[in-house]
Amino acid sequence: MRHTLRLNPKAERRLKGGHLWVYSNEVDTAVTPLKGLAAGTEVVVETASGKALGAAVVSPEQLICARLFSRDANAVLDQSMIVHRLQVAQSGRELWYPHQCYRWVYGDSDGLPGLVIDRFGGVVVVQISSVAMEERRQAIIDAVNKVAKPHCIVLKNDGKLRAVEGLPEYVEVVQGALEDDCAPLIENDTRFMAPVIHGQKTGWFYDHRENRAQLNRLVKGKRVLDVFSYIGGWGVQAANHGAAEVHCVDASAQALDWVEQNAALNGVAEKVQCWEGDAFAALRQLKDNGERFDVVVMDPPALIPKRKDIKAGEQAYHRLNSLAMRLLSKDGLLVAASCSMHLGEERLPDMLRIMGRELDRDVLIQHVGSQGADHPVVPAIPETRYLKAVFARVLPTR
Amino acid sequence: MRHTLRLNPKAERRLKGGHLWVYSNEVDTAVTPLKGLAAGTEVVVETASGKALGAAVVSPEQLICARLFSRDANAVLDQSMIVHRLQVAQSGRELWYPHQCYRWVYGDSDGLPGLVIDRFGGVVVVQISSVAMEERRQAIIDAVNKVAKPHCIVLKNDGKLRAVEGLPEYVEVVQGALEDDCAPLIENDTRFMAPVIHGQKTGWFYDHRENRAQLNRLVKGKRVLDVFSYIGGWGVQAANHGAAEVHCVDASAQALDWVEQNAALNGVAEKVQCWEGDAFAALRQLKDNGERFDVVVMDPPALIPKRKDIKAGEQAYHRLNSLAMRLLSKDGLLVAASCSMHLGEERLPDMLRIMGRELDRDVLIQHVGSQGADHPVVPAIPETRYLKAVFARVLPTR
Repeated sequence: MRHTLRLNPKAERRLKGGHLWVYSNEVDTAVTPLKGLAAGTEVVVETASGKALGAAVVSPEQLICARLFSRDANAVLDQSMIVHRLQVAQSGRELWYPHQCYRWVYGDSDGLPGLVIDRFGGVVVVQISSVAMEERRQAIIDAVNKVAKPHCIVLKNDGKLRAVEGLPEYVEVVQGALEDDCAPLIENDTRFMAPVIHGQKTGWFYDHRENRAQLNRLVKGKRVLDVFSYIGGWGVQAANHGAAEVHCVDASAQALDWVEQNAALNGVAEKVQCWEGDAFAALRQLKDNGERFDVVVMDPPALIPKRKDIKAGEQAYHRLNSLAMRLLSKDGLLVAASCSMHLGEERLPDMLRIMGRELDRDVLIQHVGSQGADHPVVPAIPETRYLKAVFARVLPTR
Repeated sequence: MRHTLRLNPKAERRLKGGHLWVYSNEVDTAVTPLKGLAAGTEVVVETASGKALGAAVVSPEQLICARLFSRDANAVLDQSMIVHRLQVAQSGRELWYPHQCYRWVYGDSDGLPGLVIDRFGGVVVVQISSVAMEERRQAIIDAVNKVAKPHCIVLKNDGKLRAVEGLPEYVEVVQGALEDDCAPLIENDTRFMAPVIHGQKTGWFYDHRENRAQLNRLVKGKRVLDVFSYIGGWGVQAANHGAAEVHCVDASAQALDWVEQNAALNGVAEKVQCWEGDAFAALRQLKDNGERFDVVVMDPPALIPKRKDIKAGEQAYHRLNSLAMRLLSKDGLLVAASCSMHLGEERLPDMLRIMGRELDRDVLIQHVGSQGADHPVVPAIPETRYLKAVFARVLPTR
């Protein structure tokens, strides 16, 4: 018989409203102790009065101690359910995106907490971040094969969350083989090789696809600066869509090697120049050199990892975008992005407002983008919405 | 010598931060009375300590009694300035949009308070809502001719704001002639005739262009319901992008005649069916008939005209979208839109969350759109950002 987690009175409200997470202080541990439950166990979550709310997998030692995977208390998170969820997730992506290149599974949003899967055509990269999913590793692999028949499956199990769950970090090609440890993909008609073994996360950031598509419309003949370029997601696409010159800045020499390879792959190597170094230093140097750009893309890594970092992180976003704005030509475009969930939606526009006044420029927001449709948002879980990309035209003050 | 409006202490802060409006209770009327100033007069706005903040045009009897058009206190809002602002506005639009079809001037955002101009290729439709702009009517017409050389200019001066300013309402073709009182336009590759004389506002709503472009990606082979269709902006485009069937609901028989004409213009008349009637009644009737749709677009007129209407308006949005969700097929897409500035950004997603739980459906937000780049937002003026379009996949509860 299945274990139960009984909630404290009032704790049921958030779950009934659509949320899927149970916090450890919400469990009536006198009645249903967390202690002794093995991580990854399937349990029934019930209200204080004993009404079943659904089925969850537990991480008894975590702050988020259980995640609902079904509103049916009898549901079982087995291979058959994983197959079904992969199919539902796939049909949602294929409506939006061609080429079988997309984030296939986005954790809780796709009913598979602790699991992320990115698909690069015939290469599938799996990231497991919970004991529950690690235990179902073979079921996941089998389900992926059943639904997508990829020639290659990679387990990129080196995320920071794993240590918290007591899981070892490893990267393993469990099926097939990769060319140069990379996977080919197409995004908005530009070709890339994603370093799925040695790169960041799964090797590629599909989340900015729609924002890059917007930028692609605007770059013809322009001089573009791509700060924190990683492997050229923004910059190489811009070059491929007619930018006159693209300058990519990144602290990683290896990332910049990949930028060059990706530029060459699209026949635009001669338009793309790479600058290795710290972004702050590089921006100051470019300013000192009198450089000006028609477009600056400022897409740093998450500068607000935790709630306590909000103040320092916001200052960093402000400083970076302010340096970027100083590098813009008289009529320039600043794309200010953030992947920090803790940065409020209104913060980047407001920073741009302030720096416009500081730098005596008029700022007009032409577009505000977010993550693509392959990162669907559960409206009850604000944590599932994290990406921002503000497109600001920067003019002389009227 | 130019009149001055001296602000009360502290009233300067918002303007210094980028806002452009002066409220009548912010003026030190003991020193600089509003009474006696003629509407439309250019004034210098200055701080309580006498520092000039910029030049404004006044509407002395309005709550918003002055609008800054320049940070330069000596600037003059004459034909030469209007020409320059039209040029700057035009270059911003042409970067994003082909076919010379766009909102060319969006009031304060383009430094031309009280003026809206929509462009339909060679037809330009002007909407004037302030005495200041009405007085500059000829300068505006001359400036439009200088920059765009249109064959036809229409003054669609029948907005509700005019009465408040004491201006008469009129519609006048001041240059050239129209065919059937309409202007041809192309939006996202679909052709329309906009009823610029007899239709709503300027005859067309360019603001949803980007959102319609998103929907166009998703409708192939689908059965689509377009509620509050007006002349078919969403529905006819969907039919033209491969929807199997489109049903347009509107209370205006004339609007539906235009839907049929626009469908015919694109060769998709046989796919588009029109239902005349109240949206609530039509949605209930469709439900009673057992109809189901793959996609429902719910794009009502502003249901929250004023702040005091927020509660009633939110209830109306909830009821309409709830009726829409009931009509969706098992795996359906709801596009919930709002053009009410007073509806907070987070309200539609939260309503969808609640109704998903009420109707036992899982709601995944795949995209959140806003107004197009031809309605640029001044970050200091929240009133300049008003449009929302939430794309929600609606599934059986997991």
